[in-house]
Amino acid sequence: MQHFAIGLAGMGNVGAGVFKHLTQNRALLRERLGFELDVKKIALRDPKKDRGVAVPPELITTQWQDLLDDPSIQIVVELMGQKEESLRFMLGAIERGKIVVTGNKALLAEHGREIFEAATKHKVPVFFEAAVAGGIPIIKSIREAFIGNHIQSIHGIINGTSNYILTRMVESGLGFAEALVEAQEAGYAEADPTLDVDGWDAAHKAVILASLAYGFWVPTDKIFVEGVEQITANDICFAKKLGYSIKLLGIIKADAKGEIEVRVHPTLIPEKHVLASVNGVFNALAVHGDIVGDTLFYGRGAGQDPTSSSVIADLAEAAAALQAPRSNYGFMPHGLYGTCTPIDDIVSEYYLRLTVEDRPGVIAQVAGILGSLNIGISSIFQPEGDEGAAVPLILVLHKATHGQMNTALEKIGALECVKKTPRMIRVENFA
Amino acid sequence: MQHFAIGLAGMGNVGAGVFKHLTQNRALLRERLGFELDVKKIALRDPKKDRGVAVPPELITTQWQDLLDDPSIQIVVELMGQKEESLRFMLGAIERGKIVVTGNKALLAEHGREIFEAATKHKVPVFFEAAVAGGIPIIKSIREAFIGNHIQSIHGIINGTSNYILTRMVESGLGFAEALVEAQEAGYAEADPTLDVDGWDAAHKAVILASLAYGFWVPTDKIFVEGVEQITANDICFAKKLGYSIKLLGIIKADAKGEIEVRVHPTLIPEKHVLASVNGVFNALAVHGDIVGDTLFYGRGAGQDPTSSSVIADLAEAAAALQAPRSNYGFMPHGLYGTCTPIDDIVSEYYLRLTVEDRPGVIAQVAGILGSLNIGISSIFQPEGDEGAAVPLILVLHKATHGQMNTALEKIGALECVKKTPRMIRVENFA
Repeated sequence: MQHFAIGLAGMGNVGAGVFKHLTQNRALLRERLGFELDVKKIALRDPKKDRGVAVPPELITTQWQDLLDDPSIQIVVELMGQKEESLRFMLGAIERGKIVVTGNKALLAEHGREIFEAATKHKVPVFFEAAVAGGIPIIKSIREAFIGNHIQSIHGIINGTSNYILTRMVESGLGFAEALVEAQEAGYAEADPTLDVDGWDAAHKAVILASLAYGFWVPTDKIFVEGVEQITANDICFAKKLGYSIKLLGIIKADAKGEIEVRVHPTLIPEKHVLASVNGVFNALAVHGDIVGDTLFYGRGAGQDPTSSSVIADLAEAAAALQAPRSNYGFMPHGLYGTCTPIDDIVSEYYLRLTVEDRPGVIAQVAGILGSLNIGISSIFQPEGDEGAAVPLILVLHKATHGQMNTALEKIGALECVKKTPRMIRVENFA
Repeated sequence: MQHFAIGLAGMGNVGAGVFKHLTQNRALLRERLGFELDVKKIALRDPKKDRGVAVPPELITTQWQDLLDDPSIQIVVELMGQKEESLRFMLGAIERGKIVVTGNKALLAEHGREIFEAATKHKVPVFFEAAVAGGIPIIKSIREAFIGNHIQSIHGIINGTSNYILTRMVESGLGFAEALVEAQEAGYAEADPTLDVDGWDAAHKAVILASLAYGFWVPTDKIFVEGVEQITANDICFAKKLGYSIKLLGIIKADAKGEIEVRVHPTLIPEKHVLASVNGVFNALAVHGDIVGDTLFYGRGAGQDPTSSSVIADLAEAAAALQAPRSNYGFMPHGLYGTCTPIDDIVSEYYLRLTVEDRPGVIAQVAGILGSLNIGISSIFQPEGDEGAAVPLILVLHKATHGQMNTALEKIGALECVKKTPRMIRVENFA
């Protein structure tokens, strides 16, 4: 029976999971594949660290260069989670004809174009199912299952940490800071949670999805990203009164002209929408294709086991590609799309929370500004205040551009009767 | 640029959709694939029938043998929806080295083993994404994305017609017969809706899923199938009072011993479970893998467009297989599983609706029978009756085997105080 030798670069949580499951489900994989996947070498930083799996010491090296220099290793798994180092390793593997399997979302988002130019030049695939949404096979589904479709939109909850935090805020009325501490204690947030809460982890994944769907690497400076750190328990409460839940959504759309937009930000979505029921560390992606229509994928978006499931699927693809090479190297560039809607032109609906003096005339002033900017008002309500002379004022606004809203926020914020910086959160009604 | 010639056998709804979308999205497919897919010949029964697409007459034949005899045709799409005729066509194609793409669930469920023996012998793949759940890429996900997983369970709403009927019964309190007529008028049920309402359409799909997941073709006489024709508006109402929705579920499980069960029947599921929110003609499958954990796939389970999306994805796979043949012919048999739990040994929980005399002592008699058969009672309630001297009595029962329940139903039905045949519906609590 044919054997394929694999090198693992990095043995953090996911690497340990891959090793563990390749071992435990070895018989199943052999039966299903008709060949064997052998881990030949593992590069890791600290051989003494306990990873929860028994690794034969003869497999271990502290130098990933050893994986590249070993001609018998045909597939490498890049799980180091670094930037420069991981890129050098990946390019080194590609140059030597070794297939790369990776979960490195940040690297792909920033260097995807370069990586796939190298892959195409050397005719070596790069697989990256593990980079987006853990165990959910979203990459394979967009790349292969929906190959006949123009992807009209993707709405995704693709960061488990922020979703867990928002879920806890809803369930227990916690403030953001308290919910973050809870998430860290439960192991769902890092000691440095920046990328998770500032939206950039989700943004990296959104860039990868959009690039795959539209055939060109979307530059990260063309996307809009806002995190969840400003969401308050009050916002969650007011949103609920309006019939909405707040989620950190990655939103990817292509318009009729072929311009695409990619954005990640907290979003009010209708409580009854299926995405509103996606809680805790689960991820979900609603994908709308022009032929297939509405679809939804749901599952565990992170964690040792789900992510290893995706790595193992990619290892099977990699081995099949070695047996019978194909001309799709994991990302197929094409010219049917290529431009991004300027961020200021992106259209959305909005929730606006103001803190205003409790006197007549305030609504007229605010409405006056919005009217002068052609921003329609869907509804206004004034909930119970708890801030003394200043009271909350909530507006839900019809469609307007990012640019129009920025101007509106500036002018409204400058009003004397407006006591704090206005809080604006986008609304998606999935019309 | 390389061209692959395709023959379509059958031009019903789905065939017309495939032709239409291959034409309309031609540029997109060419860019993504790097080759062209050309429909060379179409075999159909009635050339004069209006299919909503303009088909060049030179492509048309009334003889599918012409597709087999044309050496330039390398891929055939079997969409005739027949049994014997479709089988002869498929085997004829395989023997001639032509790759088969099909949506024929009934054929695969009955003849899958024979078809894949031929495929393996002739080294020709057979692809069948369109056979299960319309546009949802469930076949690809189980076969490829979850290749490292033991599939522990699949719970699926995989028949749109019955799901539409049940949805309408819930929304409008309709009886089954009324809801069926509505479905037929809306085009969601055939004039002869038998396979949809008796559960066998769902059963065919469940057999395919289980066979793919467990590596052997599950014999259709080993599965349990019950349709939705006996579901009443009362059952739906009582289920709701108990916190459940009623769905026609395909349930596939593998136990620790490796024995598998495949069953399709109406099922009470918790209202809060995500499957309970899958309405109308949508399908959904909850798949639990030992590594990936819980996942859910949701989308349109039938219809011209969603099903063509899956056919087109398979055409892309077929063309890639022609470029670079692989040793997986669409179904990988293996010996890790092979036995089915005898139907009488299948364990479930149950809802039991009796119509009984309105007098003391009845519950004691019924409970006595259940106790003597070791069937635990979870709850009992007696809703408002509307049947004169006879009143409804609802019991929810703990886990028991199919065999135990059959005995219980016989004995309970024989009691003098029990006025009608007991109605039993299985319950799935997803514990």
